[in-house]
Parts: sequence; C-alpha cells; structure tokens
Amino acid sequence: MDTWKVGDVELRSRLILGSGKFRDFGVMREAIQAAGAEVVTVAIRRVEARMPGHVGLLEALEGVRLLPNTAGARTAEEALRIARLGRALTGERWVKLEVIPDPTYLLPDPVETLKAAEALLAEGFLVLPYIGPDLVLARRLAQLGTATVMPLAAPIGSGWGVKTRALLELFARERASLPPVVVDAGLGLPSHAAEVLELGLDAVLVNTAIAEAKDPVAMAEAFRLGVEAGRRAYLAGPMPPREGASPSSPTEGVPLGGPGR
Amino acid sequence: MDTWKVGDVELRSRLILGSGKFRDFGVMREAIQAAGAEVVTVAIRRVEARMPGHVGLLEALEGVRLLPNTAGARTAEEALRIARLGRALTGERWVKLEVIPDPTYLLPDPVETLKAAEALLAEGFLVLPYIGPDLVLARRLAQLGTATVMPLAAPIGSGWGVKTRALLELFARERASLPPVVVDAGLGLPSHAAEVLELGLDAVLVNTAIAEAKDPVAMAEAFRLGVEAGRRAYLAGPMPPREGASPSSPTEGVPLGGPGR
Amino acid sequence: MDTWKVGDVELRSRLILGSGKFRDFGVMREAIQAAGAEVVTVAIRRVEARMPGHVGLLEALEGVRLLPNTAGARTAEEALRIARLGRALTGERWVKLEVIPDPTYLLPDPVETLKAAEALLAEGFLVLPYIGPDLVLARRLAQLGTATVMPLAAPIGSGWGVKTRALLELFARERASLPPVVVDAGLGLPSHAAEVLELGLDAVLVNTAIAEAKDPVAMAEAFRLGVEAGRRAYLAGPMPPREGASPSSPTEGVPLGGPGR
Amino acid sequence: MDTWKVGDVELRSRLILGSGKFRDFGVMREAIQAAGAEVVTVAIRRVEARMPGHVGLLEALEGVRLLPNTAGARTAEEALRIARLGRALTGERWVKLEVIPDPTYLLPDPVETLKAAEALLAEGFLVLPYIGPDLVLARRLAQLGTATVMPLAAPIGSGWGVKTRALLELFARERASLPPVVVDAGLGLPSHAAEVLELGLDAVLVNTAIAEAKDPVAMAEAFRLGVEAGRRAYLAGPMPPREGASPSSPTEGVPLGGPGR
Repeated sequence: MDTWKVGDVELRSRLILGSGKFRDFGVMREAIQAAGAEVVTVAIRRVEARMPGHVGLLEALEGVRLLPNTAGARTAEEALRIARLGRALTGERWVKLEVIPDPTYLLPDPVETLKAAEALLAEGFLVLPYIGPDLVLARRLAQLGTATVMPLAAPIGSGWGVKTRALLELFARERASLPPVVVDAGLGLPSHAAEVLELGLDAVLVNTAIAEAKDPVAMAEAFRLGVEAGRRAYLAGPMPPREGASPSSPTEGVPLGGPGR
Repeated sequence: MDTWKVGDVELRSRLILGSGKFRDFGVMREAIQAAGAEVVTVAIRRVEARMPGHVGLLEALEGVRLLPNTAGARTAEEALRIARLGRALTGERWVKLEVIPDPTYLLPDPVETLKAAEALLAEGFLVLPYIGPDLVLARRLAQLGTATVMPLAAPIGSGWGVKTRALLELFARERASLPPVVVDAGLGLPSHAAEVLELGLDAVLVNTAIAEAKDPVAMAEAFRLGVEAGRRAYLAGPMPPREGASPSSPTEGVPLGGPGR
Repeated sequence: MDTWKVGDVELRSRLILGSGKFRDFGVMREAIQAAGAEVVTVAIRRVEARMPGHVGLLEALEGVRLLPNTAGARTAEEALRIARLGRALTGERWVKLEVIPDPTYLLPDPVETLKAAEALLAEGFLVLPYIGPDLVLARRLAQLGTATVMPLAAPIGSGWGVKTRALLELFARERASLPPVVVDAGLGLPSHAAEVLELGLDAVLVNTAIAEAKDPVAMAEAFRLGVEAGRRAYLAGPMPPREGASPSSPTEGVPLGGPGR
Repeated sequence: MDTWKVGDVELRSRLILGSGKFRDFGVMREAIQAAGAEVVTVAIRRVEARMPGHVGLLEALEGVRLLPNTAGARTAEEALRIARLGRALTGERWVKLEVIPDPTYLLPDPVETLKAAEALLAEGFLVLPYIGPDLVLARRLAQLGTATVMPLAAPIGSGWGVKTRALLELFARERASLPPVVVDAGLGLPSHAAEVLELGLDAVLVNTAIAEAKDPVAMAEAFRLGVEAGRRAYLAGPMPPREGASPSSPTEGVPLGGPGR
C-alpha cells in the first residue's frame, strides 16, 4: 500500500484539510469524509477566542487527527504561545507552524518561521512549517528536524493554482534531502492538486477551495479523486513530453485498400 | 446520474481511449477496464493493412463500443474510404474523422475535414471530427450535425497538456451552440484531463499517455480518476480565483491569551 | 540591413499598425511615426460607411502605405466586395483578408477565408489573410500564393498575449514552407510582440494595445522597441534554456583568502 | 527624464550587466556599451583567485561603475569577507550580496542573507541583496535599509524567464514599501526583461543570456531595447486585458454598399 509518514504516523490520504470557512460543522464533517482526509488543521487562536465558526470546533472534529495551527501569529514568539495553547487544548504535539506578518497576502516569514521551528522542536513538538517556495529554507528546516515542509503554490485562499511550479520542481528533484513536501495554499481545483502529486511531491493541504465551493462535499470528493489521480500517475511512470507529435496510429507506408473502396 | 450523449447513446464515462501503441492486447484490455472506458477508437487503416499490433485487434476489443477512426487519411476522399471500410469491418456507424495531411505534427485539415463530415453525414454516419481549437469551424460542423467536436489540446502524442486553453475556454463559454466537446490529443497527465473537465467541456480522448506509461493499467486508472475529479469539481461550483489572498483562519482583532501563556 | 518582404515590397519595420480606436487623427499619426510603422491597415467598410473616426481617415494617412482590410465581412462574398471597394478607394491592391462570422470573439472563418483568398488572388490582389493558429490552413494559403499568413495570438482586442504559443512555435519550425508569418490580434504589451519575434516569426500587427493605452504615442514607441528587441535577439542566437542553474561566476574550488580577511 | 536610484546615485539605465562568461574582455566591453549599462557586477572572489577570465577584469571595466558581488559565499561570514575584499580592490562601497549554499540551483539563503545585510549595512556598505521571490524577506531587508531588493525570476543562468511572476506581481503591488526592485537571475530573452519592467518593477540584471548568446553584443542591444520597451509601456499606461474580444474596426450595423459592389 502506498503510504507516507508524518513523524511516526503512517498516512494513506495525501489530502490534508483545513477547518475554516465552512458553512457549518455538518458540512465540514461531510466534506472531511468525502475527502477521505485523515488529518485536519485547526486555527487554535480562533478556537481560543471563540470566534464565529470555532465554538465547538474541536468537539465537532472528534475522531479525526487534529493538526493545530498557529494562524494569527506574526512572530516566532506568538507562534510558540499558540502552539503551546494548541497542545493544551488538543493533547496533540503536532503543529502546523504559520508565522505570517503580512495581512494582505498572508505570506510566511522565513526568519521567524525558522526560529519558531527550532524552539518548538526543542519543546518536543512535531513541526510542519508553512513556507515560501524556498528550497534553501526547506533544507534548513529539514536539518533541524521538521516533520514536513509546506511550501506555498500561491497566496493563501487565492485559488490561483501552482504558480510556483518552477521552484516546486526543484523540491521534487531534491526530495531525497527533504522530509515529506506538502504543498499548502493557493490550490483552487483538483487539477492543481493532481499537478502537485504528479511532480512526485507528497501531499497537499486544501481549505478555501473546498469550503467555499457551492457544494463543498462534492468538491471535497473531487479533490480526493484529483490527489489520487496525480499520485497514481506519478507511480505509473508517465511518458516524457515529446518534442514533436507522435501518431497514435501510425500509418506511414500503409496502402489504402480493402472492401470499403 | 451525470451522463453525456454521443448521438442517442448515453455514456457515463467521459474518457475515450485509443487502442494504439499498447505493448499487447492483454495490457490494452486491462487498461480499458481500469479507465472505465465505454468507447475505444480503432485505426481502421492499420487493421485493414494488418499492421503490427492490429492483427486481431477488433476481436480483442469485443464487448467495448468501437469508434473506428480514419487515421492515415490525408484527404476527405481517403477519409470516406476508410470510414466506409470501418463500417464494413465493425458494423458501427460511428466514425472519428481524422484528416491529417501533415505527417510531422499530425494537425488536422479544416477544409477537408468539413467536406468529409458533410459527405459522411449524408451517408448516415455519426461523425466525431478531430479539429484544431477553432470555434468557427466547430460551429460549422455543429450546423452540419456532427455528434461531437474534438478540438486538440496540443499535437497528437506530445503530452504537452492544455496548450490551447485560451481558445478552449471559448468553446466552454459557447457550449450552448455546440455538440459535446471532446478534447483530443496532447493530454499527457491526469491533471491535464481534469483541467479540461473543470472548464465544463464534456470529455477527453487519451491514447499515448496511457499506452506509453511504464504501467499503462495504473495510468489508465489515474486518468479515470482525473476525469472524475475534474467533472465533479465543475459540478460542485468552484470558488472563483481571488484577486488577493484570503485567510483560511482570519484572526484580525483576535486577542492572544489563555491557558497556554 | 535586416528586412522582410510583402510581395515585392521590402519593409524594414516589423510592426504593422491598425488605424481604429484612436482618439483623433493627430494622435494616430503621431503613433504611426513613433511606431516607425511603414504599413497601416484600414477598415474599408467603416470608411465607406463614414463611421465615426473614419471620415477623412484615408486623407489622414497620406504618406503611409495603406493595407485595406475587410473587417465587417462575414462571408467570402462580403470580403470580395469590401476588398474591391478598398482597391477602388485607395488604389492599393494589398488586402488584409478578414472573414469573421463570430461577433463575440471575432474569430476568423477558415473555409470562407480560403475561398476568398483564392478569388482575390485570381483578381490580382496581394492577400494577407487573418487566420487561427492553424498550420495546415496556413500551408494551403501559402500554396495558393498569399503574401503572408496572419495567425492570431489571442482574440482581437483582448490583450491576452501569446496564448497560442505552442501552435505558433510550429509555424516557426515550418517557416521554410510558409510566406512571412505576421502575428495579428491579442498582443497587449511589447513583451508579447518581442516574444513573437524571438520565435523567429516575421512581424506583428497591433492596434488596440496602442490606440487604447493612456498615452498611445508612448505605447507605439514601446512596441517599436519591443519588436526590435525581439528581432535582434532572434538574430543574435539566444542561449538555449538550461536544465539546471549555471553560475554566472563559478567559484567551485576557489579558496577564500586575500587582504580582505 | 525617467531615472531610478541606487542609494544616492541616479541611474538612467535599468539594465545591470554581469561580467562573467564572456569570451574575452573586448566582447564584454562592447556588450556593456551596446547594453547602455551604467553598472556592471563583478565576482570579487574570482578576481582575487585570478580565475580564468578574471585576470585584468577590473582594469578592463574602467569607466563603468562596478558592483562587486559576493558570488562564492555560502555563509554570511564568507559574504562579509568577500565584500570587504571587494571594497579594498575597487574602492566601491556598493555590494551585490549573494549568499548561496546550494551549488546545484544557486538559490540564495534567506537567513544568512539577512544576517550579512545587517552586518554590511553597519559597516557602511550600500547593499543590493539577491533573494528568492519572498516579499516578507524583502520587507525585512527594506527595513534594515538595503538599497535594492533583487528577487530571482528563475534559477541563475537557467534562461527560463519570469517563472515567479505571481510572486513578483506582489512586489509590484507593494512597491511603496520597498526600495527599487531589481529582478536578477533566470531571464533568458528580451521579452522576459520587458515583462519585468511592464509590471512596474525597477530594473533587471542579466549576464548569462547575453554572454552566452552567439552574438553577445547584438544580444546586449536587444536587452537594452527590451528593457526600454517594457519601461515605456509601463509609463504609457497599458490597456487592461479584456474579458472578450473587441473589434479594432467595429462594423455592427454598418450597411454594405458602395462602388465595389
């Protein structure tokens, strides 16, 4: 069976879901099921602040592996506080590390992220850091011992697709020196998710594209299929793109003839 | 149930397969099954000429709906002869019309294709013409009464993906004035197939990308999943791509605090 | 000197301008000069109908070589009428052949264009046909003897850029079998024009992107520079894109040392 | 006159050249002149190590403003040493800061770059740092007081073009909070340079694409033209791309008529 690992945990699903922006918990739970997701990330700060859509969220997610995230943290220090809070609330030592000083495009801070990762690892967390498509930073995080690296495809919630493809291809080529690569942010359609998996990267994280579809449950299933399609294609060994065209049915030198004439 | 129609025939699968280039008939049959394909196209000229890989092909495809194609035809006249031969050999009045004077890039001839379509329709064929991404030609064929139009994504066998996307988007916008749109040629990966379906087009035809994968059966299944992913996403009503970023977990104005600190 | 030819006429400028949509004739004339354009196309039907912006247009273009076009023609027959009218009004046997049945995307009709080209050539016209990115059609026109082929980059007036690049690359590879290739329609910025010339294609035609810029004269000069940049780059023999990175300043094996330490 | 500034120095040319990889100094000097470049970057470590092509380089560049670079540095500390060496050798306090631990793709290290920038600024250098397309890092460098930020378009020497466009667009939107943005690395053709300038970014740095062209001097001029084209287009106020097509010569409602019929 084709699996991948976050820390010691073996996972079959390569689609991690976010829990924000859903209409209600019922839809969210159905979407998680339709996605076949084994891991769902939760914004701890919003849970703690009892923001709309977050009261009762942890309870609603019972039975799913939680991935507390540090959304809302603008500095390493804030991220540490939120991560600790997440562990206290959920009992889970996994943390999706987001350090985002930029309120407009929600881009991560490479320096504070690295600092926070180091501190969190020292405190025994299993760290999944959200980063730019920066292979050098990814390797530094790998050397510290993060469980994954999570480069962005495009700004969070944009739905633009794999806009950083040329740089993500470098992640794919250098997979041997990296922990699992989970592409996070910017994926808007199943074809985008399939494209990531076809590159040989390990998994994707999707939230907005599912939660804000007209039919989130159907879209969750569509992403599940897209992820499986991309992964199986990668394993099946695709043909390389050709320089010219190649006839499916070459007929050069074939004489016309037969009963039809 | 979500279906589409070619002529009067209702189809569930939106993935049509080609039968060329497979290692052997066993692999081909398994791939057809893994793809969930209901329709498979066959190069009649090669069958008739008993080309390698084509002796016994029709027998090997028993139980699948055949779509005879006119590969090898460089003129309308040649296409007519091959089409009639195909009907004689298979008993099938469907014909995938290919008129390809160009041996390098295998691009279709718009004028001869139109002429052949008209003649074939007059002879009672159900015509599925392979064309460039030319909306005006597609409408002319639609007015003649072809069962589909089959614009190319990229040159046959190239695996380049949806390189004609800007023009295929026009097909999608104008679907109301067209028969089912089946994108044929150039698709190399499931993400390409998903992208076509996400645009709202009706189906894809794939051959080389499956037959020449290291594991054609696994790749056939990957394409099946990609096509389903794209179709379901289209039906699920995707979010529109955003101008800026949008937090999955907005936290503006959320005070930090709580037990974790 | 690097020149190209339309019929027997040798041209230095590879930028053909359209005369529509300008604020006034003064701006148009300045733009033509800033563009260094030697040829300007004119919508004969609008001139004849005395449409706004077209009364006095021919007079305003004195000193420039006119390229009457058949804009407004939906059929070959209409194109013939407009072309003859253009010859009568301008004394010019050149004609930019546009047969456009589609009022929304302004896409050309391949069949009627071919038919009109044949008739116009028989009447002694020098024909520059506007077509889709269809290499087979282009070759048919070449065989008839048209002076150029003018495939589209994107829909007229869209400004989308070189959206048909994969198909235009085939034109570039097959230049030996074609008359000069002038990319017409859809170019929005000088980088788009440069890209066309870098491919080795012969020229571009631009109208909307210049006429509707805030400063049309400055934009005309920008396009002139872009076209020259692209052409010179093509002639200069570009490096091929690399698989990996390549240091501008390789230092492998270079020991650090010296006064600075 | 349209100028931009690096520190207090006003520059007219928006094309900075690299001095590596040229066949000989004569070609290099001619290319610099053809490019109209006012600033040329030099790999100090190679000069100091008397690497091939670097003996006599500084002398060969007399009359041009030198931009010493720290190519070869893998850490902040190494960069500091090379920068000081560069100041000693050239008398120039400008430094193009490159900290590149990755020998394959030549990607910059965000953390060491930031650290080195801080130290160099404290020592009175004018710092132009090479970075990934990371807006958050760029803002941190801006806050420290670097003279520019220099995000990459693609890996150094790849010639792939503007592969980080979606992220560079964010730099363009946020220009008010940044020093001049000079896109460095990966540009292979003048159209790529024009595209950068059309986005409203300030300048480009090019080396390999010019030095390794068959005719480097002609290519240098082509890039000069491309840069000017892009800049002028930006200033001219381009039309926005359209949703649909827009006729250059609208003729709706125009009756056909006149002498030609």
